[in-house]
Amino acid sequence: MKRAAVCTIGDEILIGQIVDTNSSAIARELNSIGVKVFRMESISDDNRDIKCSLESLLQSYDIVIVTGGLGPTRDDVTKKALGELSGSHGTVLHNGQLEVVKRILANRGIEISDINRDQAAVPDTCEVIINERGTAPGMIFRFKENAYRHCPVLYSLPGVPFEALGLLPAVTEDIRRHFALDSIYHKTILTYGIAESTLAKMIEPWENALPSDMHLAYLPDPLTGVKLRLSIYGGEYAEEVQRIDSEFEKLKPVLGDAIYGEGNDTLQSVIAGMLRSSAKTLSVAESCTGGRIASLITGLPGASNYFYGSVTSYDNSVKENILHVPTSIIGTYGAVSRECAEAMACGVREALHTDFALSTTGIAGPDGGTPEKPVGTVWTAVAYPDKKHPGKTAVIARMFRFNNTRLTNIDRFAASALNLLRTVLLSELDA
Amino acid sequence: MKRAAVCTIGDEILIGQIVDTNSSAIARELNSIGVKVFRMESISDDNRDIKCSLESLLQSYDIVIVTGGLGPTRDDVTKKALGELSGSHGTVLHNGQLEVVKRILANRGIEISDINRDQAAVPDTCEVIINERGTAPGMIFRFKENAYRHCPVLYSLPGVPFEALGLLPAVTEDIRRHFALDSIYHKTILTYGIAESTLAKMIEPWENALPSDMHLAYLPDPLTGVKLRLSIYGGEYAEEVQRIDSEFEKLKPVLGDAIYGEGNDTLQSVIAGMLRSSAKTLSVAESCTGGRIASLITGLPGASNYFYGSVTSYDNSVKENILHVPTSIIGTYGAVSRECAEAMACGVREALHTDFALSTTGIAGPDGGTPEKPVGTVWTAVAYPDKKHPGKTAVIARMFRFNNTRLTNIDRFAASALNLLRTVLLSELDA
Repeated sequence: MKRAAVCTIGDEILIGQIVDTNSSAIARELNSIGVKVFRMESISDDNRDIKCSLESLLQSYDIVIVTGGLGPTRDDVTKKALGELSGSHGTVLHNGQLEVVKRILANRGIEISDINRDQAAVPDTCEVIINERGTAPGMIFRFKENAYRHCPVLYSLPGVPFEALGLLPAVTEDIRRHFALDSIYHKTILTYGIAESTLAKMIEPWENALPSDMHLAYLPDPLTGVKLRLSIYGGEYAEEVQRIDSEFEKLKPVLGDAIYGEGNDTLQSVIAGMLRSSAKTLSVAESCTGGRIASLITGLPGASNYFYGSVTSYDNSVKENILHVPTSIIGTYGAVSRECAEAMACGVREALHTDFALSTTGIAGPDGGTPEKPVGTVWTAVAYPDKKHPGKTAVIARMFRFNNTRLTNIDRFAASALNLLRTVLLSELDA
Repeated sequence: MKRAAVCTIGDEILIGQIVDTNSSAIARELNSIGVKVFRMESISDDNRDIKCSLESLLQSYDIVIVTGGLGPTRDDVTKKALGELSGSHGTVLHNGQLEVVKRILANRGIEISDINRDQAAVPDTCEVIINERGTAPGMIFRFKENAYRHCPVLYSLPGVPFEALGLLPAVTEDIRRHFALDSIYHKTILTYGIAESTLAKMIEPWENALPSDMHLAYLPDPLTGVKLRLSIYGGEYAEEVQRIDSEFEKLKPVLGDAIYGEGNDTLQSVIAGMLRSSAKTLSVAESCTGGRIASLITGLPGASNYFYGSVTSYDNSVKENILHVPTSIIGTYGAVSRECAEAMACGVREALHTDFALSTTGIAGPDGGTPEKPVGTVWTAVAYPDKKHPGKTAVIARMFRFNNTRLTNIDRFAASALNLLRTVLLSELDA
């Protein structure tokens, strides 16, 4: 198995100003072609640090992927360090990249400057991967055996995630061409609504009976629930796929509807699939989630096929005027109540003329809340066509309580609401 | 200056299934007390990898912070590796943490299992920091001089971000108690609306005149624009604050209103401040941004003071029925047009009875778009009280074009719209 390391360069990461999302995206891509990432590092924009860390990585790993430190401004020193590391005698201007630089600037109505032109200059020791999405090119450095006792390859990508992702297909294609790759196989199934430790107890007999070459991991996340991942390294790809599938198959009777998808599915993507295939439409009324649910739903391409829209009724006047929640409900039960959640769901369903409607009302914190309705409390409701009484609306509501910070509470509220909608869709669309 | 390293443990990071946000949060906290993070690493859930990497970090750094690998399930091996590394003779049950485990499970209505009880057991070589937010405790390992020629301290925190963040204050307090800390000073100012390379050209004379001990970095981000950060390590804290402030002061005439804030400000937090202090209210009508703007605004505590709500008008019927956009506008100009954006802003302002209203309509992609209105096009409008004609509504609209993936386009659309609102508030609230 080829061994890889990912190294991110930039003080902005080390001081915590930005979160590194590139390493994770790169690891996913490498995994998919059978290259395992054994180490990720983040180091500073310092010439000596860069050379020292990269030399050490090149000694231990076949593939080293570097991101960051290629921006147009002078705080970026990666290109110089890579030139020195690879014994470059100077830089050359890459015409293909220069054309892209000119085109990008022309589109923005900006005149080309020396800083921009320098972006297309690279050490004379590298091959260029043209970056169509930005001004700094990708670079490939192939090291000879005398330097590191083996022949590692270093790929340098820009730090801007959109640009780094755009170059990844060319990187994996180059890796495939140069290395004989072993297989690797991961599969993940997704569960929602069961706490990690409860889940662990429920599936303990299954886990104990797993073949010894399969590795199980639990991955909890506020938005997607607990993911269960089985991995096998090496082996015959098609056979491993089949073996892992058959182990997961045994879990279905244990976990039932708590399993909602696999791989990169999300609650909203699974809901999208159900709505699309049944040609049903959805609207949302959000109070405490403040647009988060609509944003998750519309993050998916093609959402306009089933999602009509939403109302964020942050102020009670909006609940009353747009969603027609009776003033008496808010007066009697409060805005955070089963009654209000139900009225919001029915109200948005009627106002936006959809088949299904989802609502949330709760207290995300940090302030607010009472002993009976503490911060972290949410009521969520789903309104849908009542099959027993055609033309009437059925509505179901649930209360959940969490104990997190504001943004995590909002995510958990949104996920619980989406999961309630999913279970309603499961029972209503099936029958 | 004390030198720190952060090490994240978990295969889920190395295979790219989750993004590591803990390292960034830890680095920010350490920076704030004058400890500089020189290296971040992510390694696998493997006993040998963990011991080997941590030994190497303990040799080079004064402070090593480890997160992850402490969950209740068997894929977590960190605690065992830490016990071996510190010469532990076994584990002891920590009663304080056990109480928390019992309380958390009781709140969830779950009975305590052996797996849960084990969470409160720690190597006999550590001090415990009780984790009130979860079942796995924080641990402090203090190493003696004979092991590493200096006396490093290792802090182990759980991987769940909400829990790791909860333990950070205790960690920084312990670090302060044990080390004599140098000062460190960063300050960041935030700009929106000027591309990084244009900005670099505009401020080049200023940058060339900076004192040699100040380090400048550019941090571009779709949601917040380009941040400019100046750093000084060491020195007298109060004096450095003053020196950096005075350098930034010189930039104000160059960049004008493009500077919108500093530090952790965001476009939405700056807007919140202006609305609060003038007691004005806001509503939003979103098409292509699909709830993202409302979600950004309501992510801030206390948003209900100025934010009444929003309408996500994904389907044209919602634009017509709820926002009262005339059918003729959509028919004549299309939903992505200046006219539609203006009508949406005026419509939501009237329907939700607010002082200001913001709207967006555009094409986030990947599909859709025409040669005249390609993917990445957005129209945004702000409606507000017309001062010259009391009782009437004024409206201003702008078009922007980006060239990103769906989610990044949505973020850029949202930020451009918020920035338009900010500039309108600046001129309308001032006068």
